[in-house]
Amino acid sequence: MNTFGEMFKLSIFGESHGPAVGVVIDGLPPGFAPDMDKTAREMARRAPRRSALSTSRAEADAAEIVSGLFEGRTTGAPLCAMIRNTDARSRDYSKNLPRPGHADYTAHIKYKGFADYRGGGHFSGRLTAPLVFAGALAKQLLTGVTITAEPVLIGGKPPDDETILSAKAGGDSVGGVISCEAEGIPAGLGEPFFGSVESRLSALLFSIPAVKAVEFDDGFALAGMRGSQSNRTDFGVLGGITTGKPLRFKVAVKPTPSIAIEQETIDLVTNRPAKITVNGRHDPCIVPRAVPVVEAVAAIGLLDLWLTGGFPLHFEEDN
Amino acid sequence: MNTFGEMFKLSIFGESHGPAVGVVIDGLPPGFAPDMDKTAREMARRAPRRSALSTSRAEADAAEIVSGLFEGRTTGAPLCAMIRNTDARSRDYSKNLPRPGHADYTAHIKYKGFADYRGGGHFSGRLTAPLVFAGALAKQLLTGVTITAEPVLIGGKPPDDETILSAKAGGDSVGGVISCEAEGIPAGLGEPFFGSVESRLSALLFSIPAVKAVEFDDGFALAGMRGSQSNRTDFGVLGGITTGKPLRFKVAVKPTPSIAIEQETIDLVTNRPAKITVNGRHDPCIVPRAVPVVEAVAAIGLLDLWLTGGFPLHFEEDN
Amino acid sequence: MNTFGEMFKLSIFGESHGPAVGVVIDGLPPGFAPDMDKTAREMARRAPRRSALSTSRAEADAAEIVSGLFEGRTTGAPLCAMIRNTDARSRDYSKNLPRPGHADYTAHIKYKGFADYRGGGHFSGRLTAPLVFAGALAKQLLTGVTITAEPVLIGGKPPDDETILSAKAGGDSVGGVISCEAEGIPAGLGEPFFGSVESRLSALLFSIPAVKAVEFDDGFALAGMRGSQSNRTDFGVLGGITTGKPLRFKVAVKPTPSIAIEQETIDLVTNRPAKITVNGRHDPCIVPRAVPVVEAVAAIGLLDLWLTGGFPLHFEEDN
Amino acid sequence: MNTFGEMFKLSIFGESHGPAVGVVIDGLPPGFAPDMDKTAREMARRAPRRSALSTSRAEADAAEIVSGLFEGRTTGAPLCAMIRNTDARSRDYSKNLPRPGHADYTAHIKYKGFADYRGGGHFSGRLTAPLVFAGALAKQLLTGVTITAEPVLIGGKPPDDETILSAKAGGDSVGGVISCEAEGIPAGLGEPFFGSVESRLSALLFSIPAVKAVEFDDGFALAGMRGSQSNRTDFGVLGGITTGKPLRFKVAVKPTPSIAIEQETIDLVTNRPAKITVNGRHDPCIVPRAVPVVEAVAAIGLLDLWLTGGFPLHFEEDN
Repeated sequence: MNTFGEMFKLSIFGESHGPAVGVVIDGLPPGFAPDMDKTAREMARRAPRRSALSTSRAEADAAEIVSGLFEGRTTGAPLCAMIRNTDARSRDYSKNLPRPGHADYTAHIKYKGFADYRGGGHFSGRLTAPLVFAGALAKQLLTGVTITAEPVLIGGKPPDDETILSAKAGGDSVGGVISCEAEGIPAGLGEPFFGSVESRLSALLFSIPAVKAVEFDDGFALAGMRGSQSNRTDFGVLGGITTGKPLRFKVAVKPTPSIAIEQETIDLVTNRPAKITVNGRHDPCIVPRAVPVVEAVAAIGLLDLWLTGGFPLHFEEDN
Repeated sequence: MNTFGEMFKLSIFGESHGPAVGVVIDGLPPGFAPDMDKTAREMARRAPRRSALSTSRAEADAAEIVSGLFEGRTTGAPLCAMIRNTDARSRDYSKNLPRPGHADYTAHIKYKGFADYRGGGHFSGRLTAPLVFAGALAKQLLTGVTITAEPVLIGGKPPDDETILSAKAGGDSVGGVISCEAEGIPAGLGEPFFGSVESRLSALLFSIPAVKAVEFDDGFALAGMRGSQSNRTDFGVLGGITTGKPLRFKVAVKPTPSIAIEQETIDLVTNRPAKITVNGRHDPCIVPRAVPVVEAVAAIGLLDLWLTGGFPLHFEEDN
Repeated sequence: MNTFGEMFKLSIFGESHGPAVGVVIDGLPPGFAPDMDKTAREMARRAPRRSALSTSRAEADAAEIVSGLFEGRTTGAPLCAMIRNTDARSRDYSKNLPRPGHADYTAHIKYKGFADYRGGGHFSGRLTAPLVFAGALAKQLLTGVTITAEPVLIGGKPPDDETILSAKAGGDSVGGVISCEAEGIPAGLGEPFFGSVESRLSALLFSIPAVKAVEFDDGFALAGMRGSQSNRTDFGVLGGITTGKPLRFKVAVKPTPSIAIEQETIDLVTNRPAKITVNGRHDPCIVPRAVPVVEAVAAIGLLDLWLTGGFPLHFEEDN
Repeated sequence: MNTFGEMFKLSIFGESHGPAVGVVIDGLPPGFAPDMDKTAREMARRAPRRSALSTSRAEADAAEIVSGLFEGRTTGAPLCAMIRNTDARSRDYSKNLPRPGHADYTAHIKYKGFADYRGGGHFSGRLTAPLVFAGALAKQLLTGVTITAEPVLIGGKPPDDETILSAKAGGDSVGGVISCEAEGIPAGLGEPFFGSVESRLSALLFSIPAVKAVEFDDGFALAGMRGSQSNRTDFGVLGGITTGKPLRFKVAVKPTPSIAIEQETIDLVTNRPAKITVNGRHDPCIVPRAVPVVEAVAAIGLLDLWLTGGFPLHFEEDN
């Protein structure tokens, strides 16, 4: 299940502190010339930054194209892109003490003690880097479509650096809500019964670490309406199929579980209660960095449905 | 995409007013003796009822087993179950006037005017009947697991028949929120990166017509917390993998779009604005009937992850 | 794995002596009006006949369309077709004595003693009836393509009724070789690396019970040539992709394992050697009935690659 | 379709003259310590050699593990292995003149002129290097199973260096037949209806460039027998499922299409007949190098069926 897609297929690989993370993309049309500057800018939006609001871990996050590109154009064969892990300090991680709220414990159980525990290993948010890369290509192929996400709530309030800085000052973290809109999508995308637009996008969105809720159009608010109110004509999806109207959805991102405040955990060796203080360089709020990831997976999911539905691509073959 | 599952595979088929709806289930272990009474009771929970709160369309909803069962036990080969459509009045449906809030318009576009428009055709809520059938088998195979859903809000308030009857009296409908808990699940279910428990369950949940939002654990509320609050130890999923603690999620169900109040639509032939009053027998609130469907898809998704993860089944082979 | 296809997906179900065999076909374009007479003729080619050369089991083999067809045209939703089993005599089959050369023993092992053993159950050649149905639709959608198979060897000699009758007279059976040619296929079908035309077609051909060998173009003969001889310009496939030239392949069909001559087997209950004489009505040579099956799976495999490759269909939407 | 497998999934990538070829393997159990010396020896069997019988292109063919391995053991996450292309001379290849018998023409058509034409690009036999790597891991996981392939015919005669050297001396090439036997396989592997052992293995075998025919057990010879002869008790597969007896199959490998003798082709730019002499370093007979590839894909296919069938693995977790 590290593979997603019917016609635009991704196989994702890598661990946070291994040699690299990456993705194999199968289904790119031949002759497409990706704009590598645009792609790099998307990746820079997700990359950790040297700012007070973000982790101080600095990674160039440059994608190395291993296959599928020849003389600047896609060949039709799978495109493999790797992003080297250049600045990972493994000493920050303990094998025995799972960080509360992290995948450390469940990865340990699932992989019988053999998971690469450093920095979350394969469960790390770093795996979203190849997703953003793939999403950047998908965005460029979806000509005429605009996908825009933004934080609408941070720590329960309208976005505000103060909230993040205040949490950071207390050794704590905050979550938030990201809203996303996709315009320019033709009517008719989506596949019954299990391939509804919401099914495909939510599957991708819930792959993003820390996403705990997804709603489409007015989501939970619709549950409180009457039919005469909710039968609106501006919904982006009906019956799982796009209407041609803008597609709108929101995701809830939980607070970064890595916090400096001392927390209780269980020592996996002694099986006894223990204390943990997460000292690594971590974001007090990952919401800003999650924004380009949300856009990327939206582009990936929509492109896959686009190709599955037999909609034509209009990239420039001859520029 | 009418197929779901890696190791417990469903292929769903049928239209609301065609001969039958049904499902082919591939991946049932051989030697399992389904309790057909239990299965019938699950289907009865979903079936339309002769009550003031529900549609008056009466369907026996009896599943006919076409294959995969021999002398009361599964053979290992695919089990096909069909549910005949016995009481459908096609005259209630108009080809030209798509019902607002329904899949009528998008099905028309996607299938180029050839969709079976009667009662929503393949997009009808009736397709959840075979899902409930498959879910009933999945529940029985998940020995030790208890999956329980219930409405927690109807029309924005705690569940209350009054709310539904009041909407019905006004020719209107209401939505609601269903909460579901699954207990007894071992730690370790779920597959990184795209097969997280949330990804798989949300994909199934968003296949249920009218579901517009899904949240796990505390969902949107988590987005407003600090890490020191959200790093709880009772979450059912961490990193996309089950923890062994009960799994909790909620879904938002929008109001039935079929209402008796006159609404505006577009005539698909003349392309001009038109009025529509939906006269068929429809539920003023589908939330109660959606409850067993939510349980069913939870069971289906969990069983698929169970088998994919190599967890053993403990049904009685020799009773 | 009872499912085949990327864009033209089949889910096959049924047992030889259960209520029915059938198939769910997902991926049919909307608006296609299958010629049901043509389809019935294809199925009649495969059906058992009342002739000296074939089994005397008589089945109407009429396909009942359960879904996906409305007013004579495909709706875009999955088409489920069922073929009832009307004339199966279960008393001809023994649970304990696996017929040599049959799937009886392996089905017993695989399904832990719970397989429906009557007439081969899910492993019966009867499962090819729904394949022929699906293939008949695929053929009609592949406008401009002609797929023709014929026996080229029966019992090691050019086809000849005498060979079959002589084997039958001795209570024995014979096999044969079927050659198939597909003309009118555009260049460019096939998907590297694992979706070569040969990979996809051979996977389908080896699903046909009794097929034990498949060769493309000059097959084994090529292995004895020099490159200067084998670098011909008339091959239908190069590098796994169609060239636009006719596609040619051959399959070896082993003799029907059900023979009247007494054979040795193992009693599955006592685990001791036993004798068996297969008394059912069986074909002394299934090669003639396998011919339409070979054509059908060729059509299914090619249509799936056709759609996956994005080639347009040219069926008449408006006749 | 560059992905294969249900439970042991491969995603293959790379081009002959690009930076690297490689594979992402998803489904390796956690805690497995691959024997990297064994793996290297398998790869050396396939690698080009400095001998009179083989191409003089020298590639170290060392696999670089990019992910999925930590402290010498598999982590449970996908394992990505890359093999750098270190000694490719692109000047040997012409874009305009497709080599007869090669994928050059079909790749050009399929990928609309954008395929990486150098050395066959993604269609090159070099893509079998990552297959051999994956197969080496699969072999090690299939404890108790022995898979052995060998050439049985070269140029139509028993294997003999003279045949190859004679062809080489004439600027020509020869093909051959490889026989493979797999011992120690439990009864019960294989999945009806489309996942028969023969279907899965043939799909993989026909992915190997130059393979044009596959037969199981006695293959084409069975077609000339009577049932009383072919109902043998030593077949490795019946009904698509393994019997527990050794599995035997043969593949036909056509002669290397790259030959020094002048051949006719079509100039893809002028669309006019042209002459071509393939001057690169090519094997006069690829059969010897194909032997480990045949073993590798057999191991891959069997391991995938093994895991799909729920058979346990017995590798040493604690050595």
